[in-house]
Amino acid sequence: MKLYDREAGPHPTRIRIVLAEKGLNDQIEFVSVDLIAAAQKKPAFLAMNPIGKIPVLELDDGTIISESTAITEYLDNLDGDPILTGTTPREKGLIHMMQRRAEMMVIDAIDDYFHYGTPGLGAALRPWRAPEWSGAKEWGQRRGAYAVASMPYFNDVLATQPFLTGNRFSMPDITLFAGLIFADIVGLPIASNLTALHAWRSTVAERPAVKNRTGQTPLPEDLARLSAVS
Amino acid sequence: MKLYDREAGPHPTRIRIVLAEKGLNDQIEFVSVDLIAAAQKKPAFLAMNPIGKIPVLELDDGTIISESTAITEYLDNLDGDPILTGTTPREKGLIHMMQRRAEMMVIDAIDDYFHYGTPGLGAALRPWRAPEWSGAKEWGQRRGAYAVASMPYFNDVLATQPFLTGNRFSMPDITLFAGLIFADIVGLPIASNLTALHAWRSTVAERPAVKNRTGQTPLPEDLARLSAVS
Repeated sequence: MKLYDREAGPHPTRIRIVLAEKGLNDQIEFVSVDLIAAAQKKPAFLAMNPIGKIPVLELDDGTIISESTAITEYLDNLDGDPILTGTTPREKGLIHMMQRRAEMMVIDAIDDYFHYGTPGLGAALRPWRAPEWSGAKEWGQRRGAYAVASMPYFNDVLATQPFLTGNRFSMPDITLFAGLIFADIVGLPIASNLTALHAWRSTVAERPAVKNRTGQTPLPEDLARLSAVS
Repeated sequence: MKLYDREAGPHPTRIRIVLAEKGLNDQIEFVSVDLIAAAQKKPAFLAMNPIGKIPVLELDDGTIISESTAITEYLDNLDGDPILTGTTPREKGLIHMMQRRAEMMVIDAIDDYFHYGTPGLGAALRPWRAPEWSGAKEWGQRRGAYAVASMPYFNDVLATQPFLTGNRFSMPDITLFAGLIFADIVGLPIASNLTALHAWRSTVAERPAVKNRTGQTPLPEDLARLSAVS
């Protein structure tokens, strides 16, 4: 299988953790997509994923699977022993609910903040391929504020149980963990009084698969170009 | 089980079709949420779903499952015979991919158009509970244009296969079908030359579960209030 992604990106981080949790790293050929050159908005990539975002998984028969949740469903079920996406109806329901909450309330909101409320990766790369509009920056800043305002919700959930859907680590924990890394990168605060959230984050960070995942370090060329943009 | 939704709403339509496909209507107590009175943005509802949107499923033990995808995962797996969310890893991956594409490219974009690009249900009910900002209307209109511009993608997929993930009707077909109903409601065009899309829509509309689903007609009080808003 081929995974089209970019080292240290928030969504690639999700899939790199899934691969490590499932022991699948050696079955993947990683293909770096040059985000700053907008490779993901060009026809060859859009033919794989009309949304124009990484990561994208290509199976050996050429089948394309985009979207982190969909890729996770595929990889987690490959060996017939899903550990991240649930086995009972109740687990599946709660996992997909919490994973969407972590996306909508944190990672998607931060993505909008990064691309519109800050210089991001530059205008050509903004989501939805929309040109500038008058309220774009204000909208982006509101989205960042929404992510920050959402964090106490997850703190409250984690004050009552070890992981987002109960006693077991699962897909939504990966989504939120990647979201908090993204918050750090873009400089959005995670309040120090959210003690359950911070404690959970430390626990997740210590998991062998999270600690030893591939692709944690941005490519040197990306660091140089990012500092030129900002 | 209790389902908190509203007759004829786009996301409620998704779950009403799922219930009919699975033969579960008689196991559900339907609770109408008064969207125009902003009941879904008030503390009692937000305690169930911090996103502040319908539908929400409440299990008999009090467990809450929000998000249409999550509710579908739960209901489809209840009888151990999932017909809408896939059984093989490949099916699960493709189903979750196409369902997110149908959300992001159609139903979510139309939702933004409805609430920001048109009078919607009134300002108090706009998503993310954000007050007005200067570029809101332009942003909403762009989102509507994006939904319209996305429809040829689905037409192209459906020109090569009967349903969005291949030969079987599944969750993403329900999402897109509800999205096209939403397009009709808000007056966004579905171009007549998208012949595969229109043919697929007719086929889906003739499915017994789709044809006989509950909650197809808006409540008379909603029709009266909607005409007062617009």
